[in-house]
Amino acid sequence: MTKLSYEDKLKELGYSLPEPPKPIASYVPSVRVGKLLFVSGVIPLVNDRLLYAGKLGREVTVEQGYEAARVAALNALSIIKSSLGSLEKVRRIVKLVGYVASAEGFSEQPKVVNGASDLLIQVFGERGKHSRVAVGVIELPRGAPVEIEMIVQTK
Amino acid sequence: MTKLSYEDKLKELGYSLPEPPKPIASYVPSVRVGKLLFVSGVIPLVNDRLLYAGKLGREVTVEQGYEAARVAALNALSIIKSSLGSLEKVRRIVKLVGYVASAEGFSEQPKVVNGASDLLIQVFGERGKHSRVAVGVIELPRGAPVEIEMIVQTK
Amino acid sequence: MTKLSYEDKLKELGYSLPEPPKPIASYVPSVRVGKLLFVSGVIPLVNDRLLYAGKLGREVTVEQGYEAARVAALNALSIIKSSLGSLEKVRRIVKLVGYVASAEGFSEQPKVVNGASDLLIQVFGERGKHSRVAVGVIELPRGAPVEIEMIVQTK
Repeated sequence: MTKLSYEDKLKELGYSLPEPPKPIASYVPSVRVGKLLFVSGVIPLVNDRLLYAGKLGREVTVEQGYEAARVAALNALSIIKSSLGSLEKVRRIVKLVGYVASAEGFSEQPKVVNGASDLLIQVFGERGKHSRVAVGVIELPRGAPVEIEMIVQTK
Repeated sequence: MTKLSYEDKLKELGYSLPEPPKPIASYVPSVRVGKLLFVSGVIPLVNDRLLYAGKLGREVTVEQGYEAARVAALNALSIIKSSLGSLEKVRRIVKLVGYVASAEGFSEQPKVVNGASDLLIQVFGERGKHSRVAVGVIELPRGAPVEIEMIVQTK
Repeated sequence: MTKLSYEDKLKELGYSLPEPPKPIASYVPSVRVGKLLFVSGVIPLVNDRLLYAGKLGREVTVEQGYEAARVAALNALSIIKSSLGSLEKVRRIVKLVGYVASAEGFSEQPKVVNGASDLLIQVFGERGKHSRVAVGVIELPRGAPVEIEMIVQTK
């Protein structure tokens, strides 16, 4: 059996890579230093509109937050492909930070950030297993429910 | 005088390493890339129960927060030992991020995160001196008062 | 035309480097590992006093927050110079994290963090283009409106 490319794997899972999001300010989508690629924070934009807006524990359910985290991760993958030329250049997902916009009393950040983590493991398998941080913040840019930051090891 | 191992030093200080905490979601406790070990966010769990719950400036005092940060750091050391085989493989504590669950108006995050920083310096001496970030977040997983994230340089 | 040094460029822009801020707790201003310099979180202190205090969306305007982010970045540059001996040793600004103390409903974090990003690009040009994360947190040490964290690649 021929091994699927990571991008084919994404398609098989029913996802397609969006256009890489444009930074909404004075910075670049990613910076590579040696074998590490530092990816800028991404929010769940689809065609430049937020998939969901608001906070977990108030306007946004855990299920919607999970989906939003997955969409943010797809945006990150799009940046990674754009930067490296191909997802095949990913050697390991090193680290994921998930910032979850949280209403007072909401402490299920890990369930939300799983939307990104699960996608990474579905696509990259063992190479997708990452260290992770999940925290609840009061507000995110544009009223996003979640923001994802990644560090990737390249081949 | 024979130099104590870092783990003996911990014992001398009256601490013992807990079992490494299990990630509560789809990720791994740490990822090593070259000489850098990225440790996942850890909270002050003792036998899978929070030492303290709630926010600084409300349910949790600075003294309790300091103690919670130290316990979270012990959990991180447990992960580091588990990943590297021994704490002796630590060459330098590079970076510590302390996320402190903070009630409105609480701005003593550094005093809380010192609970982790002081332990690292007590155990590792010069090699324990790290760069640091301390911020106040609205909520943390499971209602934890503090979450600690670390990057370690290995031998 | 002779190329200006980065520090001369700063002066030309009307800025001067402050004394490197002293950590307000048990840690060091920066740690170097190989070609990466990890800079501790810095707040907009001028002569050990906050330029502005309070939250964006409440006491502090976006314009003031922008200025505060720039001043925090100057403090980070001061640490970098102190650590590397000269800003000329900067090969690339790799990553910037901007934590913005935000009142409920404030989602213009990127405009605030631009105060740091714009300065870095004015001073370092292409080498100043960095990956970036901007989030809104509930509180910061000493009541600061913004905290800046950086990773730098050295020559």
